[in-house]
Amino acid sequence: MTRFHSPLVDRLHPYVPGEQRQGDGVTKLNTNENPYPPSPQVMEAISSVSGNDLRRYPDPEASTLCEALADYEGVSAKQVYVSNGSDETLGLAFMAFFTDKAALQYPSVSYSFYPVYCELFNIETKTIELNKDFSINLDAFTNEAGGICFPNPNAPTGMALGVDQIERLLQRYTSGVVLVDEAYADFGAQSAIGLIDRYPNLLVTRTFSKGRSLAGMRIGAAFGNEALIAAIAAVKNSFNSYPLDAIAQVAAAASIADETYFQTCKAKVVNTRERLTDALIERGFTVLPSLANFIFASPQQTDHSASELFEYLNQHNVLVRYWSKEPIQDWLRISIGTEEETDQLLSVLDMALSASS
Amino acid sequence: MTRFHSPLVDRLHPYVPGEQRQGDGVTKLNTNENPYPPSPQVMEAISSVSGNDLRRYPDPEASTLCEALADYEGVSAKQVYVSNGSDETLGLAFMAFFTDKAALQYPSVSYSFYPVYCELFNIETKTIELNKDFSINLDAFTNEAGGICFPNPNAPTGMALGVDQIERLLQRYTSGVVLVDEAYADFGAQSAIGLIDRYPNLLVTRTFSKGRSLAGMRIGAAFGNEALIAAIAAVKNSFNSYPLDAIAQVAAAASIADETYFQTCKAKVVNTRERLTDALIERGFTVLPSLANFIFASPQQTDHSASELFEYLNQHNVLVRYWSKEPIQDWLRISIGTEEETDQLLSVLDMALSASS
Repeated sequence: MTRFHSPLVDRLHPYVPGEQRQGDGVTKLNTNENPYPPSPQVMEAISSVSGNDLRRYPDPEASTLCEALADYEGVSAKQVYVSNGSDETLGLAFMAFFTDKAALQYPSVSYSFYPVYCELFNIETKTIELNKDFSINLDAFTNEAGGICFPNPNAPTGMALGVDQIERLLQRYTSGVVLVDEAYADFGAQSAIGLIDRYPNLLVTRTFSKGRSLAGMRIGAAFGNEALIAAIAAVKNSFNSYPLDAIAQVAAAASIADETYFQTCKAKVVNTRERLTDALIERGFTVLPSLANFIFASPQQTDHSASELFEYLNQHNVLVRYWSKEPIQDWLRISIGTEEETDQLLSVLDMALSASS
Repeated sequence: MTRFHSPLVDRLHPYVPGEQRQGDGVTKLNTNENPYPPSPQVMEAISSVSGNDLRRYPDPEASTLCEALADYEGVSAKQVYVSNGSDETLGLAFMAFFTDKAALQYPSVSYSFYPVYCELFNIETKTIELNKDFSINLDAFTNEAGGICFPNPNAPTGMALGVDQIERLLQRYTSGVVLVDEAYADFGAQSAIGLIDRYPNLLVTRTFSKGRSLAGMRIGAAFGNEALIAAIAAVKNSFNSYPLDAIAQVAAAASIADETYFQTCKAKVVNTRERLTDALIERGFTVLPSLANFIFASPQQTDHSASELFEYLNQHNVLVRYWSKEPIQDWLRISIGTEEETDQLLSVLDMALSASS
């Protein structure tokens, strides 16, 4: 690349986000965006920001937003941290809690950014195989000091653990931080935030990108014991004092304030998820039970491979996500879109399935 | 803090931004914000963003903005990188180019975030004393591999190096990256961006927070050889795929497009800077020759100390910046405000100077 870069650059395998192809004819079901726009109150809050607000630095602590989130979740504001998307929150948390001294444990199939952070920050890793049914095998995590991290619901499977299962892990795992990545928890899964008072090693991360339709604004949050939050803040204040801009701060607070809108959109996504699941099962797919805004489906029982269907959909401007790696090379991750997008997906899929493979 | 944090948290001394006291009676001259709001075209561009835009992830590469910046600066888009404030740009560049193998050289008096990054990323440092007149002593930087970093104009002195001086450094310093931090270059200093084609180890960083009145939006940029930009991008894509939200991207591009407004605000700030400089010299201050949107002034020749004046101003709701450390403990950094704010500053200062010390 250049003889001037530091050795760490050589060890990186950067994260590759889903394709962001735009255009009127594209049915975009590959990046788990919410099919519905944010609340009109969010748009009003954005319009209310003045030029005079923007010439000033934003509140570096985003205090108003932290207080709104604390009220909403029933915790104290000192147990809340917000920053520029949950990816940044995760990156800072990895720096704050995981080290090169002991291996971080995470599921072998989970968010593909975890190993990327570990390369960047030189953190040792130990991957834990999923159960046969693709659920996370919590019993296989051992009580070593390096920390534990998993998404709940898991990505890309969409399967969720119950809060009782997570509490049982916390009862026996006391030697490092347990990071529960709840990026997709807005669509029906149980949150572990209610456990942070009892477990000083529990950190829960959230995002406004999925359930709150604000992927374009980059807002993430973390919830945990006050001391954990202070450790993340120390790292953040050693990297970027003002990660969340003034507009993102008011947009996020306005989203929290409009509970009715949030619940309405959530119900629509959940209904479409159940309809799509049924429709795919009818067509011979295996579909994992999802509590996220996407489903993970395999055409193994049809005459078609996942990679072939992925290509066919792509050529017909229906974007879904596919990874050609064990053990998920026979599966497609499909984001939940509008009813119309779902119709379009099923229509193109029916064309693919009726073609000879 | 907590037994769960990683060892790096213990070595941190996070950056402390200037006080963000708000309120009608406060004359805020402590964080180098632009006294004028951003261009009306920026506000229009922000209003044009729809809810449908915000539910989607932003362009991870911010291509439209990079192209606008490339056109504006006369470089190619592959020589441009943008992210969440120039602090994030600096943080990523420190990871990409500086290491623990050889010491990074920077001036002993400069942006106080540099040593903070070095603590966070475990980078060795070597500070280079300023000349007696507080200018940066480029001759004292040695040709070792660890890299060089300095602000131009320097902060908090406001003094600028000429591009010819920087080129002479680049002609002899070939063993690491030279990072020229041009956060304050919009107010009259010469930019080194014109040198990036000729010096593969030159990285220039900029911000939209000062000259473009967008501190609240968090937009930073870097310019350099294509290989340097690729190295920063690799680190960025291993940390946060989407650092710049959709609104920040269009706001920044709209700011670039309104050159007339930019030049008008710049001229006003420069005029006020020269007026304030003269007024302080009349009152017995020593004022360094500034090409930034702040001045660095010492009351040594009056009967008053800088710390005493800082306190007096603070009690009278005029905020300036003061550091009680050698060799700048007799100096105040004063941001350039509006004409009215400058009147208010001088009025309170006159009260302080007429009081017995």
